[in-house]
Amino acid sequence: MSTSTDMLGPTKETDGIDKAEAKREFGRLNKHLQDHQQRLYADGRHALLVVLQGMDASGKDGTVRHVFRGVNPQGVRVQSFKQPTPEEARHDFLWRIHAAVPPLGMIGVFNRSHYEDVLVSRVHALVPEGVWRRRYDEINDFEHMLTGAGVTVVKFMLHISPEEQARRFERRLRDPRRHWKFSASDLQERERWDQYQEAYADVVRRCSTEWAPWTVVPADRKWYRNLVVARSIVAVLRAMDLRYPDLPEVAP
Amino acid sequence: MSTSTDMLGPTKETDGIDKAEAKREFGRLNKHLQDHQQRLYADGRHALLVVLQGMDASGKDGTVRHVFRGVNPQGVRVQSFKQPTPEEARHDFLWRIHAAVPPLGMIGVFNRSHYEDVLVSRVHALVPEGVWRRRYDEINDFEHMLTGAGVTVVKFMLHISPEEQARRFERRLRDPRRHWKFSASDLQERERWDQYQEAYADVVRRCSTEWAPWTVVPADRKWYRNLVVARSIVAVLRAMDLRYPDLPEVAP
Repeated sequence: MSTSTDMLGPTKETDGIDKAEAKREFGRLNKHLQDHQQRLYADGRHALLVVLQGMDASGKDGTVRHVFRGVNPQGVRVQSFKQPTPEEARHDFLWRIHAAVPPLGMIGVFNRSHYEDVLVSRVHALVPEGVWRRRYDEINDFEHMLTGAGVTVVKFMLHISPEEQARRFERRLRDPRRHWKFSASDLQERERWDQYQEAYADVVRRCSTEWAPWTVVPADRKWYRNLVVARSIVAVLRAMDLRYPDLPEVAP
Repeated sequence: MSTSTDMLGPTKETDGIDKAEAKREFGRLNKHLQDHQQRLYADGRHALLVVLQGMDASGKDGTVRHVFRGVNPQGVRVQSFKQPTPEEARHDFLWRIHAAVPPLGMIGVFNRSHYEDVLVSRVHALVPEGVWRRRYDEINDFEHMLTGAGVTVVKFMLHISPEEQARRFERRLRDPRRHWKFSASDLQERERWDQYQEAYADVVRRCSTEWAPWTVVPADRKWYRNLVVARSIVAVLRAMDLRYPDLPEVAP
């Protein structure tokens, strides 16, 4: 399993920072994020779409919980994408995704996304190869259009090692409060680890565009994962140069 | 006004067919359409999206009423696109359009469409030029994606002369049962006739793709307009080779 994992880089890297230092920085970033979200809302000219992908137990839920802690929930909409409903299956793969794109002023978080349609759909051959191959371009065009309409798209692949996934599965099986997070199908998916890594590597290669880059986040250590995601989101919001609008002119 | 109208071809052409003959053929086509719609629904592998565009009083409503007369309304969804609501305005221009795309098995009819965003938005400079110019490609990419997902897109520009529009406006003003169709802003739009014709010509030139062609329909004569649209829709449905699925195997 380890060779193909390497395609996406290290999972344990922490870039020389230690846990205590990381937590202090994360605390500061979280305050900035709360402030930027308020400006984003008041400014009303931009939206932010955060896409989270990763293997089972890679920490998508935990990332949402930690990174957006304390941020006004009225300004953040989290959308999880599961297996398509029968109605969704009667539409193109971007239909349900487009509907959930955040309006200007909002932060949208996708817990899984349209990328499942080139990951699980590819690994399980749910559609013919010609169909999923075409989707990389379709995704890039779609994200380009969104960007032009004021939606900044940032995408994180939470990258864990198979050993770390095994540890997390064990914890889910031992801890009754984590049982609900475990499903037998997770083990079947785990058997396709290499195929998924290959599919992820293609996603990162083909869909890291100038307008909507992928960040592969070493995610074996949760505190480092949270730090990387928070840093990146705060940097993107800062670059928007968000302003509180002036008071409108009032007739005397 | 007449020169720029010519960019889009004749408005009075009837291609040698007379009214009585046209009505007989239209009647036959309407029966075929009813039959094809039922097959489309049963087959479940395709959808049809019919886009109707045209100047005020060009006959968009009348085309829907005549061409889809007698077709099972459960299999046809007509969607009119008016000026964007405040919520729609906080999203990219394709957001509300995508949401209304018909699912597999259905016929969707758009009475006005995403093309307004390169017509009225261009003529009234509602967005910067760079924005509407980019939209031609965005529209082509979007329609390409839909086509790949089983949605056949056919687009009709109902092409009338300014004289015919004047006649229809007069009728709306004289006939109390047609008053509701008239609005003072229609006259303001009429003053921009040439600009609209130019914008329409660009739409037809830039967005007549292999996968989603435009048909410019000479529409001064309603019976000919209905015939051309019906012919085209029936031809497209016939080409889908729609089949009633076999009975599923039943356990003995």
